[in-house]
Amino acid sequence: MSSHTTNPDTVAGTPRPPDPTPEQQHDVERLYADFDAEHLMPLWTQRDELMPESPEPKAIPFVWRWDRLLPLAERAGDLVPVGRGGERRAIALANPGLGGRPYATPTLWAAIQYLGGHEVAPEHRHSQNAFRFVVEGEGVWTVVNGDPVAMRRGDFLLTPGWYFHGHHNETDHPMAWIDGLDIPFVHYSDTGFFEFGSDRVTDESTPDVSRSEMLWGHPGLRPLSGLEDTISSPMAAYRWEHTDRALEDQLSLEAAGHPATVEQGHAAVRYVNPTTGGDVMPTIRAEFHRLRPGVTTAARREVGSSVFQVFDGEGSFLIDDQEHRVGRGDMVVVPSWTSLSLATDDGLDLFRFGDQPIVERLGLARVHVEDPGVMGQLEGGR
Amino acid sequence: MSSHTTNPDTVAGTPRPPDPTPEQQHDVERLYADFDAEHLMPLWTQRDELMPESPEPKAIPFVWRWDRLLPLAERAGDLVPVGRGGERRAIALANPGLGGRPYATPTLWAAIQYLGGHEVAPEHRHSQNAFRFVVEGEGVWTVVNGDPVAMRRGDFLLTPGWYFHGHHNETDHPMAWIDGLDIPFVHYSDTGFFEFGSDRVTDESTPDVSRSEMLWGHPGLRPLSGLEDTISSPMAAYRWEHTDRALEDQLSLEAAGHPATVEQGHAAVRYVNPTTGGDVMPTIRAEFHRLRPGVTTAARREVGSSVFQVFDGEGSFLIDDQEHRVGRGDMVVVPSWTSLSLATDDGLDLFRFGDQPIVERLGLARVHVEDPGVMGQLEGGR
Amino acid sequence: MSSHTTNPDTVAGTPRPPDPTPEQQHDVERLYADFDAEHLMPLWTQRDELMPESPEPKAIPFVWRWDRLLPLAERAGDLVPVGRGGERRAIALANPGLGGRPYATPTLWAAIQYLGGHEVAPEHRHSQNAFRFVVEGEGVWTVVNGDPVAMRRGDFLLTPGWYFHGHHNETDHPMAWIDGLDIPFVHYSDTGFFEFGSDRVTDESTPDVSRSEMLWGHPGLRPLSGLEDTISSPMAAYRWEHTDRALEDQLSLEAAGHPATVEQGHAAVRYVNPTTGGDVMPTIRAEFHRLRPGVTTAARREVGSSVFQVFDGEGSFLIDDQEHRVGRGDMVVVPSWTSLSLATDDGLDLFRFGDQPIVERLGLARVHVEDPGVMGQLEGGR
Amino acid sequence: MSSHTTNPDTVAGTPRPPDPTPEQQHDVERLYADFDAEHLMPLWTQRDELMPESPEPKAIPFVWRWDRLLPLAERAGDLVPVGRGGERRAIALANPGLGGRPYATPTLWAAIQYLGGHEVAPEHRHSQNAFRFVVEGEGVWTVVNGDPVAMRRGDFLLTPGWYFHGHHNETDHPMAWIDGLDIPFVHYSDTGFFEFGSDRVTDESTPDVSRSEMLWGHPGLRPLSGLEDTISSPMAAYRWEHTDRALEDQLSLEAAGHPATVEQGHAAVRYVNPTTGGDVMPTIRAEFHRLRPGVTTAARREVGSSVFQVFDGEGSFLIDDQEHRVGRGDMVVVPSWTSLSLATDDGLDLFRFGDQPIVERLGLARVHVEDPGVMGQLEGGR
Repeated sequence: MSSHTTNPDTVAGTPRPPDPTPEQQHDVERLYADFDAEHLMPLWTQRDELMPESPEPKAIPFVWRWDRLLPLAERAGDLVPVGRGGERRAIALANPGLGGRPYATPTLWAAIQYLGGHEVAPEHRHSQNAFRFVVEGEGVWTVVNGDPVAMRRGDFLLTPGWYFHGHHNETDHPMAWIDGLDIPFVHYSDTGFFEFGSDRVTDESTPDVSRSEMLWGHPGLRPLSGLEDTISSPMAAYRWEHTDRALEDQLSLEAAGHPATVEQGHAAVRYVNPTTGGDVMPTIRAEFHRLRPGVTTAARREVGSSVFQVFDGEGSFLIDDQEHRVGRGDMVVVPSWTSLSLATDDGLDLFRFGDQPIVERLGLARVHVEDPGVMGQLEGGR
Repeated sequence: MSSHTTNPDTVAGTPRPPDPTPEQQHDVERLYADFDAEHLMPLWTQRDELMPESPEPKAIPFVWRWDRLLPLAERAGDLVPVGRGGERRAIALANPGLGGRPYATPTLWAAIQYLGGHEVAPEHRHSQNAFRFVVEGEGVWTVVNGDPVAMRRGDFLLTPGWYFHGHHNETDHPMAWIDGLDIPFVHYSDTGFFEFGSDRVTDESTPDVSRSEMLWGHPGLRPLSGLEDTISSPMAAYRWEHTDRALEDQLSLEAAGHPATVEQGHAAVRYVNPTTGGDVMPTIRAEFHRLRPGVTTAARREVGSSVFQVFDGEGSFLIDDQEHRVGRGDMVVVPSWTSLSLATDDGLDLFRFGDQPIVERLGLARVHVEDPGVMGQLEGGR
Repeated sequence: MSSHTTNPDTVAGTPRPPDPTPEQQHDVERLYADFDAEHLMPLWTQRDELMPESPEPKAIPFVWRWDRLLPLAERAGDLVPVGRGGERRAIALANPGLGGRPYATPTLWAAIQYLGGHEVAPEHRHSQNAFRFVVEGEGVWTVVNGDPVAMRRGDFLLTPGWYFHGHHNETDHPMAWIDGLDIPFVHYSDTGFFEFGSDRVTDESTPDVSRSEMLWGHPGLRPLSGLEDTISSPMAAYRWEHTDRALEDQLSLEAAGHPATVEQGHAAVRYVNPTTGGDVMPTIRAEFHRLRPGVTTAARREVGSSVFQVFDGEGSFLIDDQEHRVGRGDMVVVPSWTSLSLATDDGLDLFRFGDQPIVERLGLARVHVEDPGVMGQLEGGR
Repeated sequence: MSSHTTNPDTVAGTPRPPDPTPEQQHDVERLYADFDAEHLMPLWTQRDELMPESPEPKAIPFVWRWDRLLPLAERAGDLVPVGRGGERRAIALANPGLGGRPYATPTLWAAIQYLGGHEVAPEHRHSQNAFRFVVEGEGVWTVVNGDPVAMRRGDFLLTPGWYFHGHHNETDHPMAWIDGLDIPFVHYSDTGFFEFGSDRVTDESTPDVSRSEMLWGHPGLRPLSGLEDTISSPMAAYRWEHTDRALEDQLSLEAAGHPATVEQGHAAVRYVNPTTGGDVMPTIRAEFHRLRPGVTTAARREVGSSVFQVFDGEGSFLIDDQEHRVGRGDMVVVPSWTSLSLATDDGLDLFRFGDQPIVERLGLARVHVEDPGVMGQLEGGR
């Protein structure tokens, strides 16, 4: 990355020569104690830990298995009521590297949420941006600012910051899905507000299609009643039928010899805000990736952390040269600046979300593709 | 518009008092002759014509009837070959106020184009932004940068500036449609380039769906291979089935008591660039409007000129208090800052395009709604 | 520009083969007459004139001499009063190619304005964006939205669209300067409004520094009371002392071996809106260029038209290979896509304005540098 | 903030009724243990701590006294060499609420840096954005991407992310100043890169004015060699003479009855990037505030944290109703969403920086002015 680097063998906590006398050492220790008393800390003893040569995430790559997650959620469904106060029966991934906090990565929350037959998760709103993604099941409506939104397998559903929302299960059987939020980031940055709403959802109707889709779900068509750009997408639901079709179309184009995929055999779409063409919410990116059978993707690092859920198929995540086998429903955390390659024998469908909008909006993005293949994009950022 | 206005009774070509003596008059005349010789002109004799209190378009409101346009196009089809040099069998609306130029408004070109069975309009490209809209018929493919795009009733089809494009008719019967371009603006501003391409279209296949739709025609989904924003929409076709559905959905929402339409009984969508959410091309706005039976819209003025084509139904354009009855296929020009109200007994479907992106991007937009109704938008701009 | 061009020898008004029979010719003539009656015009007879391969401006390169302009302005000062109605004693450059309109280029107005001792030009406002540039003299204050702005040699002064403004001469001697506006563009596009204001200026005080400069004239410092971006610059005056210093600094940096100038010996600044860093007004670009003695600039074409005034020194404009010698105060029009090279023996200071913001905001920009030298910028645009 | 809130008295870790039986309690405990084993955590036991009704920063308001900081920095100057590895003799404010990390707030680093006579701090670069502000002294040059920048009292100096920089003291006497960086944010978000550079500065010359100022330090004038927008300001130094003048000018305008200040007697400027008019760097905002004698500002909360340094004068910070008296050089941390009012008897000059660009770019901004006074701005954000 640089032809200029001095690689100092002697890099250490305290700058180098010469070795201090015992008296000097004593003075330094007294100085450090006085720093402490005055709520001060020197840079020079911490520089290398605070400012490493490249990101050294505490979060680690990790896989949570769906066949472990779901039974635990079911047990919670039997034992723990859902209601005002706790608000949601959501169980969060706690990255083993992050010291016992319910954080998938430093910025991202990922959880399995479970709602029994005829249960209701009461309405509230908060600054935190949220979405849901459904790997299986149906029968729950999430009501977003009063608009009932059906949840079905493959759907990606939004509740942007400060939108009221609650969920209700209209069936006799339970339903589980995943939630993604920026809770850790908002908590860290002291930027969050929260407000309780109705104890039940404000519209209990169960339409197939939400009002937001009726207004916004037509490709390239913007309602004249909605000409103001919004920081988050006004579309509450991105339906599986469209996602599936878009990916199939990319692979068909590729098969016919036209540019369409990100690399050979690897189709992908980003969910976007139709008022701007940008990410669905200001802190969260969401995408869907489809690999053809037999594909291995180029290894790639990027600044920013991601969480994947396997939607269908089986395959491997190669993260910093360690292989993790995954199947349907499994969730994988990929920390910032780790190298990721995906491989599959029989095809793989992946939902992915990440904090890249934070990274990009703040000028901190970098991407490195170790073997670019058809991707063409070697290293970006500054 | 102002509480400050001095209304000068004496406003006139030459500033006021006192009346000049014959000698002074003679000196002034000699001065003006000397101006002339030096290629100079005074402001004070022209200020009121050059800078009127509000826009005074030379273009006039005017209606062209489809049942006159089409037969003339058919005769041209018999008499005039289409081919290299003339390039297109397109017949332009020449606004009677614009002195015999083929301009619908000062900025906009609107034409009927006609292609006989098995004819080909050769490929070329130009800085001018272009679209086609189909009021009836099918069987022609327009090939845009090598991508064949089927043309069918209700479709809105793009060929943005500097995209190669040609058309070919795959059937035995002729087809006619309308073209809209910014030819007058580009000519006026000395900004246009033109280049001949292939004498035939470069891809003679006839797919139902263009490649651009396969990549971009999925609501809220952006291909990862297309993350760079483009100044014009990458989507070559906006299909009637989506437009129709979007309008129906707005009217259904309105009927159920939800905000969706621009005013009571008046649904409308704007065609947009999915990479930005903005207008499809930098100089041309395009929209589709649907009025329920019995609706009369609020009278509205805006800076910028428009051309409408009736897609279906019958009704009236009230332009500056003069009524123009229209039916299917008829084309209507509405100059800048004229007052427009639409009315229909049995329902009316309207395609519309205009130069408002020019006006807005240059900070010159104003809108005035004379009777705002539910529209809420009284006067914008500065 | 293309490897694809078919250069059709046979390009002509009517498409090619075979030569029509007299009967066919008669039918075509009757068709054309019927077009005429229906206010229609064919494309194929006009395509090459309407859509040339590159811009073919009607405006021609032309020089107006200051020693002709000023005496005529003085005579106007003796003969023509300034006041309500005519509004300004401004005499416009009428490009000989533009058919007797007071237009320097299709989009731009350029005039010499003259105000006698103690005269007042009354207040008004209009959509048209305006500026003044002072090649010599002082003693007039232009009052912009109530803020009195002193005018002195080398100053560039703004009155953006819809700001009230008037001028008053506080001295016994006359003063002349140049005005630049987008009058032709606003007239052409039917976008202009005009309103009379006070018959005298609303603040007759004569401060050295305007209030707008007190708020905005500090480099890199934005008042917290002015955090909203504005489409035009809030700074009414760009003072000569800063312009001169900025140019000198660029040449000093160049002399010391640092990148700073646009090409060897050619320093240049653009006047910008401090709230955005972009052009001062949405339709007009303004710049100042300084050439060291002995410099000849690379020949350069760009889409968009410009007007120059020589501020100091002598030199040559080479426009499409024709040389025009110029000296202090002379004004030169350079139409779109003409080739321009500047040369000077003893140094040359040039004020320049143009319509490039229109061209760029509408996606129509192209630049071609024939001999790039240190400029590095070969061809831009699409 | 809401008329809708259900204030649940019973909000608690586990949702409410009915009290569990011992057996149920045992099952729940086993469930929680199993969560733990699977690296999972429930939301319902943590929701109120993770998602409070408004921000509850761990960082506390705190004051560091210059007369304590400076002597400690001097002792460090005697005892701790500056050089490769430790890189800088910088001593950071460690907010007592943040658990012994060298963080002023969760996102911001603030430190006093000290460089003895003829010492050199070696060159390096990093993703972290940095600035320096000088409350007293002079004689050090900071060399930013090879451009030597003099540091003097009142100057604000930039080293944006990934610019090489080092410092050298050309005098016999030491100099101290403050550093501000986004080290905590970059560390938290795993977005930082670091690279060593030259062991000495690459240009030891000592010009009064940096090259960046020669190019960019002229109000409203942009070099034509610098037309690309940059994410951080290209201007390395914002000089005291301009800041002081801008504030005086605002107070003069206010005294003359014109709008200029943010509230009565309170002048303020924001340091901005001249290529965009926005904040100097993508993560850090910097401002300077001046209060006239006798002024008390309206109490104000905003999302985002700030650090102030008193540049001159004496006064009080009222933070959440607690008064902190401050004088020259003192540094004050104001956490997110705490209420701040400033008061002074004899006048107060304050430098301020904060993380508001992060908050605003991510759609999380809110401001609440408790007593708006002339400020007019009641509550923003969503």
